[in-house]
Amino acid sequence: MYLRNCWYVAAWAAEVGDGLFHRRLLGTSVLLYRLQSGEAVAIGNRCPHRFAPLHLGSRVGDAVQCGYHGLIFGSDGRCIGNPQSGGQVPPNTAVARYVLKERHELLWIWLGDPAIADPAMIPNVGFLSDTAATTTPGYLHVRADYQLATDNLMDLSHAVFLHAETLGRLTPALAQGELKVTRENDRVRAAITMRDIHLPIAAGPVDQWLDMTWQAPGVIVLDIGHVATGLVRPDHGRRAIHIVTPETALTSHYFFRNAGDGRAFVRDPFSEEDEPMLAQCQAMMDGEDFWALRPAILPSDAGAIRVRRQLDKMIRDEQASDSELTLP
Amino acid sequence: MYLRNCWYVAAWAAEVGDGLFHRRLLGTSVLLYRLQSGEAVAIGNRCPHRFAPLHLGSRVGDAVQCGYHGLIFGSDGRCIGNPQSGGQVPPNTAVARYVLKERHELLWIWLGDPAIADPAMIPNVGFLSDTAATTTPGYLHVRADYQLATDNLMDLSHAVFLHAETLGRLTPALAQGELKVTRENDRVRAAITMRDIHLPIAAGPVDQWLDMTWQAPGVIVLDIGHVATGLVRPDHGRRAIHIVTPETALTSHYFFRNAGDGRAFVRDPFSEEDEPMLAQCQAMMDGEDFWALRPAILPSDAGAIRVRRQLDKMIRDEQASDSELTLP
Amino acid sequence: MYLRNCWYVAAWAAEVGDGLFHRRLLGTSVLLYRLQSGEAVAIGNRCPHRFAPLHLGSRVGDAVQCGYHGLIFGSDGRCIGNPQSGGQVPPNTAVARYVLKERHELLWIWLGDPAIADPAMIPNVGFLSDTAATTTPGYLHVRADYQLATDNLMDLSHAVFLHAETLGRLTPALAQGELKVTRENDRVRAAITMRDIHLPIAAGPVDQWLDMTWQAPGVIVLDIGHVATGLVRPDHGRRAIHIVTPETALTSHYFFRNAGDGRAFVRDPFSEEDEPMLAQCQAMMDGEDFWALRPAILPSDAGAIRVRRQLDKMIRDEQASDSELTLP
Repeated sequence: MYLRNCWYVAAWAAEVGDGLFHRRLLGTSVLLYRLQSGEAVAIGNRCPHRFAPLHLGSRVGDAVQCGYHGLIFGSDGRCIGNPQSGGQVPPNTAVARYVLKERHELLWIWLGDPAIADPAMIPNVGFLSDTAATTTPGYLHVRADYQLATDNLMDLSHAVFLHAETLGRLTPALAQGELKVTRENDRVRAAITMRDIHLPIAAGPVDQWLDMTWQAPGVIVLDIGHVATGLVRPDHGRRAIHIVTPETALTSHYFFRNAGDGRAFVRDPFSEEDEPMLAQCQAMMDGEDFWALRPAILPSDAGAIRVRRQLDKMIRDEQASDSELTLP
Repeated sequence: MYLRNCWYVAAWAAEVGDGLFHRRLLGTSVLLYRLQSGEAVAIGNRCPHRFAPLHLGSRVGDAVQCGYHGLIFGSDGRCIGNPQSGGQVPPNTAVARYVLKERHELLWIWLGDPAIADPAMIPNVGFLSDTAATTTPGYLHVRADYQLATDNLMDLSHAVFLHAETLGRLTPALAQGELKVTRENDRVRAAITMRDIHLPIAAGPVDQWLDMTWQAPGVIVLDIGHVATGLVRPDHGRRAIHIVTPETALTSHYFFRNAGDGRAFVRDPFSEEDEPMLAQCQAMMDGEDFWALRPAILPSDAGAIRVRRQLDKMIRDEQASDSELTLP
Repeated sequence: MYLRNCWYVAAWAAEVGDGLFHRRLLGTSVLLYRLQSGEAVAIGNRCPHRFAPLHLGSRVGDAVQCGYHGLIFGSDGRCIGNPQSGGQVPPNTAVARYVLKERHELLWIWLGDPAIADPAMIPNVGFLSDTAATTTPGYLHVRADYQLATDNLMDLSHAVFLHAETLGRLTPALAQGELKVTRENDRVRAAITMRDIHLPIAAGPVDQWLDMTWQAPGVIVLDIGHVATGLVRPDHGRRAIHIVTPETALTSHYFFRNAGDGRAFVRDPFSEEDEPMLAQCQAMMDGEDFWALRPAILPSDAGAIRVRRQLDKMIRDEQASDSELTLP
């Protein structure tokens, strides 16, 4: 059960070039490619004839030709050509066409009802473009459900233990910080403040903050910074995005990038510390539902739990609304 | 749900020699071996005592001894010896015995009711023996359901795309050919005729034909040839067999051989082009039923679809007939 | 469905040292470690917060700290520390604590109701400690259900076939032996006597015996020996333990050790002959229940079948008793 009427990140813009790129999103195989104009588009990757993956086929102008029997699909998903038997195309032969928008070097896909896909609702991560010193776009495949990956991001208290030798050094006072969780419309913010502490990278005592702001389905903006103790905090410190998209019920895609600071400090801790831990947690769940396992809820968990409840509510609302629409 | 009262190819005759050969057919592990007379026989491969696979045991004359506790089974499947505890054999201890016939270098097995196994119904592929220049018997394991593999064979229009650089060169005009699908009794023939075309291997214009004739459960005879344009077509061109047998619900066995022409042109395209494509199609089906996925039906598909419907009908008829037999 | 109110072997005492040792038992991941006093303890290995396996954490005195968010669990399973957010520990946060006893170099675990865990019921394998010449503790992972592994041990008639070149040489007359199966309380003994036979290791004719005594859930004591024909048999010959513990429904742990004779003759035949055969038998069962497959029952099987029935009865009794307890 996924939220469908929302914008998921399908890929980094740079991942989709001349060729046929495919990725499984919410259990469905999606084909991504660029028109000759440069515009990126997304259609279903499964040929409706014998289910061949279209990414094994080839580009024919702005269309895609299946590599098995040669059916040709336009970028709107409709079958527009059949090289066999005089070229007859059976009516209503098509793959899905998904609304896809390129913004801030990310490809945002709408997997729900296209009639209500509103680009104005794409999460704004424009700060990535406001500064020259962003890091390379990061991608990692995660062997855990996207909600476990979201928990990991919304509860940074794990940095002290899981990242003791890496990221943990950047926030040595994290465990003593004050956590404040707030919700504004559909967003959830988990803000940690560490007052009057010493940091290896600062001369005198400072106030450090570490804010994670989530919006559905799995878009998280991190804001971290410090000022001399007692000074007024600026609007933003260094920011980064951490975005998760479900691949299947047990795996997910993770997109990340830092802005305002060129250090690529996230990839190694995540690939060597977080991802293996998430995979182990997922395995220990033995296929059971999260709530069915009656997880212990900690104060430091407040952000993660609030996010889970918000997401659960949005999914329930969407399902209820779908049911209403299909009533006689 | 498989058709059971029919002849499946279990193996090439040459695959079964002095030893104990086993292969999974329709989900069931079958043991194949030769009596001292040379006759090939087939019995269940699972010892009824502790389920050891008998192929790990040894030959004792015309019988087989389990390698775990030593029970001895005759070639009729009955347990005829117990080396333990004074040799007592419990009554009714047996593995299945299957009717097996060797014909045209193939071993044909009947997995249904042995009372109605009629060797006269074994598909006639005698043309393989009529000419000296047959190719080596071919076998490939296929990571797809046997019906997807049958589709692949009954709809050769894929040659132009999937085999563009290999088999496709032999039938360059395939996509413009005229397809005629006919049914005669339980057989389905998909015949493609390409009139007045040019072939690299012919001096002047020719009429080329490419016929696939299927009979249940998965025995296909290919007939390909050409004559100078307008001349009368001979009874047969070059012929080949392409036979598929289910291994499990998601995998199958593929047996193939050409007659009348020594070129072994099938193995590489099949192992490097068809089989990987079939495996991908199977994976894209995500365990769903073929019809449930509402496949697009193309004109070039007519043979494959006719075969699926014929086979479905035969399976339904067999099931219905089984139900009648078990009514009170 | 496992018997729960009984003692299972979790590990050899020597397997659990300074670190955090984990093993899956009856489908549940268990953490084993030693207190500073040297006492071995067992608690659940899945952190109740986000399900991280505790064995990836670290020791903190006699407690264990989760390596993900740092929760600390005492050796009684209760969460006693939370380094985050001021240290608040939510009430009732705990992992299971299992009764664990070290005896005769084995760690015995009670996975059922701790209120009725009676150390006096731990199977007595004290003979292992009575002699200096025991072999190294042996452990093997088995790709088969523990009951298939128990069958293997309770029906040694397989030695003649499966171990023809190894263990079988020690009991050449096994197939002609007289088998007597008896039950005493909950124990089942399968005793084989071979009278007036010749052994390579004895000068004249001898009477050889080979007794296997099982007690629930999977503890088997082997007693083997011989005397000159007609002489009175001593209380015991060479003895060994062969103990199986379920890991999952399809895999098990096997612990073995010989007493009174230093030869380590069991490991190789078991790892190279029994275990692969058991794995194949398990695979041939295709996930089906043992009795549903209607196994042939042989005279030589009497011990194994008696054990299965005794164990089934004990499990049924336990389930029935559990149901009574939960009646209103």
